[in-house]
Amino acid sequence: MTENSISINKERLIQDMEAINSNTATPGNGRTRFSYSEEDRKTREYLSKEFTNLNLVVKTDGAGNIRAKYDPKKNDLPSVMIGSHIDTVMNGGEFDGLAGTIAALEVIRTIKENKTDITHPVELVIFSEEEGSNFGSTTVGSKVMTGKLTKADLKTLYNSEKQSAYEVMQAFGFDADSIGKDLLQKNEVKAMMELHIEQGGVLEEESKSVGIVHAIAGMNTFQVTLNGVSNHAGTTPMPGRKDPLVGASKVIIALEEYARTQVNNTTVATVGKLECSPSGSNVINKTVTFNVDIRDIEQSGIDQVSNYLKDKIKETAETQQLEYEIDLIGTSAPARLSETVIDTLVAKAEKREMDYLKLHSGAVHDTMMLADVADVAMIFVPSKNGISHSPDEYTSYEDIEDGANLMLEAVIELTQ
Amino acid sequence: MTENSISINKERLIQDMEAINSNTATPGNGRTRFSYSEEDRKTREYLSKEFTNLNLVVKTDGAGNIRAKYDPKKNDLPSVMIGSHIDTVMNGGEFDGLAGTIAALEVIRTIKENKTDITHPVELVIFSEEEGSNFGSTTVGSKVMTGKLTKADLKTLYNSEKQSAYEVMQAFGFDADSIGKDLLQKNEVKAMMELHIEQGGVLEEESKSVGIVHAIAGMNTFQVTLNGVSNHAGTTPMPGRKDPLVGASKVIIALEEYARTQVNNTTVATVGKLECSPSGSNVINKTVTFNVDIRDIEQSGIDQVSNYLKDKIKETAETQQLEYEIDLIGTSAPARLSETVIDTLVAKAEKREMDYLKLHSGAVHDTMMLADVADVAMIFVPSKNGISHSPDEYTSYEDIEDGANLMLEAVIELTQ
Repeated sequence: MTENSISINKERLIQDMEAINSNTATPGNGRTRFSYSEEDRKTREYLSKEFTNLNLVVKTDGAGNIRAKYDPKKNDLPSVMIGSHIDTVMNGGEFDGLAGTIAALEVIRTIKENKTDITHPVELVIFSEEEGSNFGSTTVGSKVMTGKLTKADLKTLYNSEKQSAYEVMQAFGFDADSIGKDLLQKNEVKAMMELHIEQGGVLEEESKSVGIVHAIAGMNTFQVTLNGVSNHAGTTPMPGRKDPLVGASKVIIALEEYARTQVNNTTVATVGKLECSPSGSNVINKTVTFNVDIRDIEQSGIDQVSNYLKDKIKETAETQQLEYEIDLIGTSAPARLSETVIDTLVAKAEKREMDYLKLHSGAVHDTMMLADVADVAMIFVPSKNGISHSPDEYTSYEDIEDGANLMLEAVIELTQ
Repeated sequence: MTENSISINKERLIQDMEAINSNTATPGNGRTRFSYSEEDRKTREYLSKEFTNLNLVVKTDGAGNIRAKYDPKKNDLPSVMIGSHIDTVMNGGEFDGLAGTIAALEVIRTIKENKTDITHPVELVIFSEEEGSNFGSTTVGSKVMTGKLTKADLKTLYNSEKQSAYEVMQAFGFDADSIGKDLLQKNEVKAMMELHIEQGGVLEEESKSVGIVHAIAGMNTFQVTLNGVSNHAGTTPMPGRKDPLVGASKVIIALEEYARTQVNNTTVATVGKLECSPSGSNVINKTVTFNVDIRDIEQSGIDQVSNYLKDKIKETAETQQLEYEIDLIGTSAPARLSETVIDTLVAKAEKREMDYLKLHSGAVHDTMMLADVADVAMIFVPSKNGISHSPDEYTSYEDIEDGANLMLEAVIELTQ
């Protein structure tokens, strides 16, 4: 490391993370800290004290998104924004979201305590309801902040107790009626960076401590229904059966092989959700319904697998004498991240002699919602065994420290 | 048809079936007539009047099995027993069980009204709880009658309201404490015949109105668990995934092809019940659990497919890097039916110039439980599209009439 570098304080970062993680709705079974829960409230109170200590100017919007600004020059220049989310899935881990939030807090603390001279303000952002744990819809806070979800939309998203997102936000104490009045504007943010756990196994496999994300995969999600003829498993001869699970199995195998060998090395295709009906031990199924999740950083890869899937389903339905439906139920385009910010991150990683890797993200993050108002980029830190959304989620604090120091360097550069 | 034949009265049979079918717990959605329900009580009352009209001697055992004897000679000779069951699955059809019960009733009526001279008595038998609708265990009544289920066993079978079979039988008014004291003995029954819908599509495909069952398939049921590594569908590259649903798909396809092409034409293998976990749209599954139902009338066929399944699971687990468990959770041996009774049925079908087919049963029936105390046989009538256990279950009354007349002829022959 060159002599003029400053660094974050890893012990302080660990202390914050452990304090917040001690507070879970599922003690002994991972971290459960939903937005708008009592655990969320305690976390906000904890962070609020830190913001006060740092003299940050804090704004909280109608969805509970927090913006906490460190602006030593008190000018009106656009901020460099850094942050992530603090909510978890049910029985989640210690690092998803929180690592990026506390790393960003620690970056601001480090700049302040070192009295580093910066021109642009730095803003810590904490997005609400990233995981979709309450309403089944992800990245809610960042979508609200950028106008992609409206107040009207929030009245149509419900939790399991049939309360709308709008009602829940209002009941928690946020001014949900103000939603839409104070959207994030282009001239407010110069750049946005988020540190996040990788949620995949690439960095670990390559023995890198940080990843610089150069692209975010787009995706198509299809729902496929195959209908056959349900009959007694004992009395229906094999020839002439119309078994939709045999059909689904053929599609699943063909899709896996095609995505693995025939497209790009960034292409993935997964059948995770699958349901059989009636799913009886001695009955040929009538219906098998499954979702196909196809992702790539190249739109051509997504299109190629989507077309293959459609052809394969049609062909399989014909040979197996099944009826089929295929519906596109979700889609998003691949996105390139800001070359300026990526170049800065690469230069700083080299300056600090870090083992970094440029990689893409297969998952969508809040930061992508800001791509139309700011230059955006992401820093990944390794996930042990690629696991996330689980009590077994693990990232070493040394790797988080490296990621936070990389962000610190980039923030100092971009705020000049 | 030769001149000296007598025939059952189809209109009377239809009248009985319609009267009983009008009485369902699920009007508009099939026939739901569980044993020990109010629908069952009404059906028993309806039949009881018919038994009184016919002067039958009726005995009902502790499980609710009915034996109604027509014994014009009042001798102690073994009976020719005929009958089936009157209970249904939830949202079942009009024919499964009831067709065989009413055909048997009509056979006795026809013999009586024609004053046909018979030496041995004819006994109508109605088994309780064949479908397993209450306690999840099939052929309960016939197993009780033959000692295969004891009173102690009935105290360990529970319905969804946590009442034991013993308690339910007692509460309905049967003397469940007498169970086991009056088992069916070898010297009581000369032969047992049951008419039943095929629950498969063979007779329809071959355009036959009746089937004479020559064998009942045996079965092995395996429960298979494949465990992989659950990870994010977007962030986990295709190579190196440990996806148990891809593994399960390979097993399902291989099994179907093997059973269809490499064993006997009586061999069937089915994966009906299958569950994925966590079954999320954007998550590679951790676990896939499925049952494999393997049946054949040849034990060698069952063994061959069972061995193939085990090998295939082992091989697939290795290539896909999965962990597996395979457990045999149910087994029964194939059974040959009585050649004497089959020969009688064939001769009578030919006498009446019926379009009959000798076939095997892939399903287990109450009659099989009597195979160790009597010569047993079954008559099948066609199931439209092979469908059963559904409101769409359909068999034409003409085919039931043919089946009943075949039974009538055989009963007359066997009671001489």
